[in-house]
Amino acid sequence: MRTRIQNIIMTPGVREEKHISFVNDAEIHIHGNRIVYAGKKECAPAFEADQVINGGGALAMPGLCNMHTHTPMTLLRNVGSDLDLNNWLHQAIFPLEACLTDEAVRAGTDLGIMEMLSFGTTSFCDMYMHMDAVAEGVLHSGMRALLGHGIVDFDGSCADLEPGIAFAKKWHKAANDRIRVSLAPHSEGATTPEVLQKVEQWAGKLKIAIHTHVSETQFDVNGCIKRHGMTPPQYLDSLGLLSHPIVAAHCVWFTDKDIALFAKRGCTIVHNPISNLKLASGIAPVHKMLQAGCKVAIGTDGVASNNNLNLWEEMKLMPLLQKGTMLDPKVVSPAQCLAAATTVGAEAMGYVDLGLLKEGYLADLILLDLNQPSVVPVNDMENNLIYATLGSHVKLTMVDGKVLYQNGQFTTLDGKAVLARGARAAQELAEKAIAKAAENV
Amino acid sequence: MRTRIQNIIMTPGVREEKHISFVNDAEIHIHGNRIVYAGKKECAPAFEADQVINGGGALAMPGLCNMHTHTPMTLLRNVGSDLDLNNWLHQAIFPLEACLTDEAVRAGTDLGIMEMLSFGTTSFCDMYMHMDAVAEGVLHSGMRALLGHGIVDFDGSCADLEPGIAFAKKWHKAANDRIRVSLAPHSEGATTPEVLQKVEQWAGKLKIAIHTHVSETQFDVNGCIKRHGMTPPQYLDSLGLLSHPIVAAHCVWFTDKDIALFAKRGCTIVHNPISNLKLASGIAPVHKMLQAGCKVAIGTDGVASNNNLNLWEEMKLMPLLQKGTMLDPKVVSPAQCLAAATTVGAEAMGYVDLGLLKEGYLADLILLDLNQPSVVPVNDMENNLIYATLGSHVKLTMVDGKVLYQNGQFTTLDGKAVLARGARAAQELAEKAIAKAAENV
Repeated sequence: MRTRIQNIIMTPGVREEKHISFVNDAEIHIHGNRIVYAGKKECAPAFEADQVINGGGALAMPGLCNMHTHTPMTLLRNVGSDLDLNNWLHQAIFPLEACLTDEAVRAGTDLGIMEMLSFGTTSFCDMYMHMDAVAEGVLHSGMRALLGHGIVDFDGSCADLEPGIAFAKKWHKAANDRIRVSLAPHSEGATTPEVLQKVEQWAGKLKIAIHTHVSETQFDVNGCIKRHGMTPPQYLDSLGLLSHPIVAAHCVWFTDKDIALFAKRGCTIVHNPISNLKLASGIAPVHKMLQAGCKVAIGTDGVASNNNLNLWEEMKLMPLLQKGTMLDPKVVSPAQCLAAATTVGAEAMGYVDLGLLKEGYLADLILLDLNQPSVVPVNDMENNLIYATLGSHVKLTMVDGKVLYQNGQFTTLDGKAVLARGARAAQELAEKAIAKAAENV
Repeated sequence: MRTRIQNIIMTPGVREEKHISFVNDAEIHIHGNRIVYAGKKECAPAFEADQVINGGGALAMPGLCNMHTHTPMTLLRNVGSDLDLNNWLHQAIFPLEACLTDEAVRAGTDLGIMEMLSFGTTSFCDMYMHMDAVAEGVLHSGMRALLGHGIVDFDGSCADLEPGIAFAKKWHKAANDRIRVSLAPHSEGATTPEVLQKVEQWAGKLKIAIHTHVSETQFDVNGCIKRHGMTPPQYLDSLGLLSHPIVAAHCVWFTDKDIALFAKRGCTIVHNPISNLKLASGIAPVHKMLQAGCKVAIGTDGVASNNNLNLWEEMKLMPLLQKGTMLDPKVVSPAQCLAAATTVGAEAMGYVDLGLLKEGYLADLILLDLNQPSVVPVNDMENNLIYATLGSHVKLTMVDGKVLYQNGQFTTLDGKAVLARGARAAQELAEKAIAKAAENV
């Protein structure tokens, strides 16, 4: 398929630029799953297209990477409100998760992918259970994802390791390389040194990334210091894990030493501002991290602690929280936010050709409607993008060269059926958990 | 006009209830501008309607009150980013505002009203200049508002007082009582004791509210202490202003004594979390204020420090910021957020019959689409409302018994023309300011 997108404004996106640039009167050409031209219309080479998309003056930009979520938790949306992480997990989440089936996870995955596509997210990084069902959802929906089978190990048996490795062998680089796999030890607190050492070895053997929760709460950090005499980053480094590509979610309670270590090792931090506020975990020192040269991506976390998958809220909050708590309006730029939501995540997923609208890059992109009252007048385009734009302004989402969402319609998912199946699966899950609790009384 | 809204779920809204309640299979009857029935369909009396609205399973709830904004600042959207309040005002905002005309303010007002209606805001509280143009916009659009002519006084001449009084005499209770007027001294720092004393006297004579900025930044509070030996709340109280109905915007740097004073006097605090973060002013101690019995409403502030008028973002941030900074997930309930966005504001505007869906109340209400992927499954309706719902889920907005917005269409505003006029007015304003600056060089 050869697609031309015309009648658009465009930003190529950012890596380390200080400002986001924009191109008026732009055009994008896509051949198969790759961008073959993105720039000024007047400079475009001849291109015969099978499909022409009229952007109607929309802003074209790279699709968003939601770098830490648990997609099937859509079924647990709004569950366990007003609890801290530890109580939320044990009282509200675990009893429901214990009743999950492949079928339920598939229903929750479709629902989450549908929500993400509607808000312009084109790839996500996930760690959960029943991961074959998640991978199947990614395969069929046309989404892109870095997936990991969550590894928990309290007794040193390393029982979750084997399924994690098997999952990687089965799915890594599947679906035209839209699926990549990580090894995903849950966190220091939910694993043993034995299993982390094996994860470290296997990540090297399989040449895949590691995805884990790091220093999410004070409780986590204090526990790690008690158990190992070090903070979680220092402990993970002592086991060699930080020498692999690593996606570290949360990183709320980082010391200056932790930040310096992460910067030195090139680890990717995933900032989850809403989840961290909602579970009263705290606010990550993102400005300090960026100043130190850390890679900072962003994520929504699961919807039981958010309670949606609209990454635009995280993009707006990332700079706001730093400005408001440091009492310095200059910290964290629009360009740093956009990089966090695109190129930093793409790189952490292991792609060198994702996150920019640029010749040779994978065609993951979105169109934003600029004809909405909340983004008129523009005055300053980069601030408009970060502070005024809403997820609902996304009018088209393309992944790997295919349009998956356009003007409220999905091309690979049956919207009505997904909503109905999601609602039903959530109800069945709640009923099962109640029945199980009654049995155990 | 007699309107029946059917096929809905409904919340009557909240005043001081601990939880938000919901009624399934509900129906609402509206006669003229008042609700004559709101509750279970099966308990509804016979009602012959001229107009039947099929909610399609939507959630009906009271319309939102945006209790502190400067609507015409839509023309200044995204201007002056990454500056603190003081520099933002003097470097970016004032030079543009000096070039405003009635016509520009009218264009900006229409644009802001259009944006607010699309996000379910049915009334707003404004303080600005060229206020006749704002009032005309409210009159013609069908919106509801508490409006005040901004009073600045640096030299004791009290020159702004007379226009403020004249505006009140002209517009208070106009437009079928949709418009109410306040006296609006800008802030302690931008006024003299002379003018505040006169405001105090006139507020009593005219029996109208006072709207002002209070303790927005540390700079404001330190300046007030230097000038008057007291914090802004204590100073305003010493002049008698707190004994009138008062709408106090921001209140970021309140001491425990300030909080106790506001609670005792029954003043209304307007929390503007996004604006306070964006301008690096800080985070108001909202939980403490609520604990002390203060009335807390919410607002967006103007869009140059937000940068939109989507009050759902403030509703979500209000509890999140308290949880995340106090490290306590239990503080600030969904019911407190909903009250802040509805009844607390309605009462501060001087209405005793606004903010609830209840027999005899004014018919300001909205319908929310529950068939969107980001609010399915519901699991917990009150948390869904505060944490998962987006402004774009609003499918119908009714003010004073009239539908003003439905499914992307406006009934009193020509959407396309308003967008075009707003964009043009912003451009002209920028050009004028540049020309003026060149003259002054």
